[in-house]
Amino acid sequence: MSPRGRRPGGADTRQAIVEAARVDFAEQGYDGTSLRGIARRAEVDPALVHHYFGGKPQLFAAVMDIPVDPSALIGAVLAGPRDRIGEALVRTFLRVWDDEAGRQRFQALVRAAVTHEEATRMLREFLVREVFGRVVRELATEGPEEPSGADQPALEVRAGLAASQMIGLAMMRYIVEFPAVVEATHDELAALVGPTLQRYLVG
Amino acid sequence: MSPRGRRPGGADTRQAIVEAARVDFAEQGYDGTSLRGIARRAEVDPALVHHYFGGKPQLFAAVMDIPVDPSALIGAVLAGPRDRIGEALVRTFLRVWDDEAGRQRFQALVRAAVTHEEATRMLREFLVREVFGRVVRELATEGPEEPSGADQPALEVRAGLAASQMIGLAMMRYIVEFPAVVEATHDELAALVGPTLQRYLVG
Repeated sequence: MSPRGRRPGGADTRQAIVEAARVDFAEQGYDGTSLRGIARRAEVDPALVHHYFGGKPQLFAAVMDIPVDPSALIGAVLAGPRDRIGEALVRTFLRVWDDEAGRQRFQALVRAAVTHEEATRMLREFLVREVFGRVVRELATEGPEEPSGADQPALEVRAGLAASQMIGLAMMRYIVEFPAVVEATHDELAALVGPTLQRYLVG
Repeated sequence: MSPRGRRPGGADTRQAIVEAARVDFAEQGYDGTSLRGIARRAEVDPALVHHYFGGKPQLFAAVMDIPVDPSALIGAVLAGPRDRIGEALVRTFLRVWDDEAGRQRFQALVRAAVTHEEATRMLREFLVREVFGRVVRELATEGPEEPSGADQPALEVRAGLAASQMIGLAMMRYIVEFPAVVEATHDELAALVGPTLQRYLVG
C-alpha cells in the first residue's frame, strides 16, 4: 500500500507502481486515472511508469492480472483480414483465457465485477475506451457498410453485443462449465461463434 | 432451517419446503435431489410439495428466487413458430429479467455461481436437464435439419452457445452496464440478437 521511499529500478518499483495504480483505478475509475497521478502516489518518476508499462492500458492489464493487454490484441485482430475478424477474435480470446490460470483469472474478474462497484466501473470504462472505442473507430471509418457517423450508435450496440457473446462464452466454459461447451475445440468454437461476431461487427 | 413440527397449510409450510429444498439442492445438486427427500427434511407430506410447487423445476425456481420457471418459458417459446425462436427467446428473456428486481436477482445468481461451488453445480444441472435438455430434445426430433441422433452433440454445443449469448447479454446489460447495450430497446435487441440464437438453435 504505502511505498517506503523507494525510487529506482527492480521488481520493487514495478510492484509499487502496480499497487498505486490499483488504488487510483479503484478510486477514480479508468478514465479519471492519470499515469502522472499514479507516479505521484508511488513516489516514482513518471518516466519510470512509462518505462515499465508503456501506457495506461498495459498498466490496467497488470492491475487486473490480465495476461496480455486486450487493446493490443484487438489491434492485431483488426489489422488482419476484415472478413475473418469474427473467427480471429474467438481464437485470440481462447488463446488468452483457455488454461487453468486463465480460467481462475476470469473467475476473479467476474467475482470482482459482481461484488465491487468500483471494479465494475473501471472495467466498464476500460472496455469502452480501449477495446470497443478502438473497434468502433476502426470499423466506422473503414467498413464499406458504415459510410458515415450516422450508424455510430448502432455500431456501438453491436460492438457491445460482440463483447457479450465473448463474455457469455467464457461464463459457460469457465464458470458454469456446461459440458458440451467445455468439451468443444477451438476450431469448433471458431466455426460456430466466429460468424456471430462477424455479423455483429461487420454486418 | 429446522422445521418446528408444523404440518399442514399456509405460508409457513411453503417456506419450510423452500428451506428444505435449498439445503438438499446445495448438498446433492439438482439431479440428486428428490421431492420425497425434500418432504422428509421439511417434515411434510410429499403431496404438499406437489400441491405448492407442482414439481422440481418450479421448486428450484423458488429456491433461486427466479420469478418464473425457466423450463415453462422454454416450452412456450418452442411451441411458437420455429422460424422465430431466436427473437422470441430474446423477448421472453428480457421480459423476465429487465427490471430492477430482475437485475438484482441476476446479480445474486452470478455472485452465487462465482463464489459457491454448490450453487454452480446445481445451476448447471438444472440448465442441462430442464432448459437445454428440452431444447435439444424438441429440436432434434422436429427440426428438418436434425434428421438423426448423429447431430446431437453438435446440437448440445449450439444450445450451450445460445445460452452463452443470453448470459453474456445479461452480463453486459445488468452487471457491466455497457451504455449502448443498456440503452438498447427490446426491439433493437430482438432484431440484433434474435438471429444469433436462431442460427445456433435451428441452423
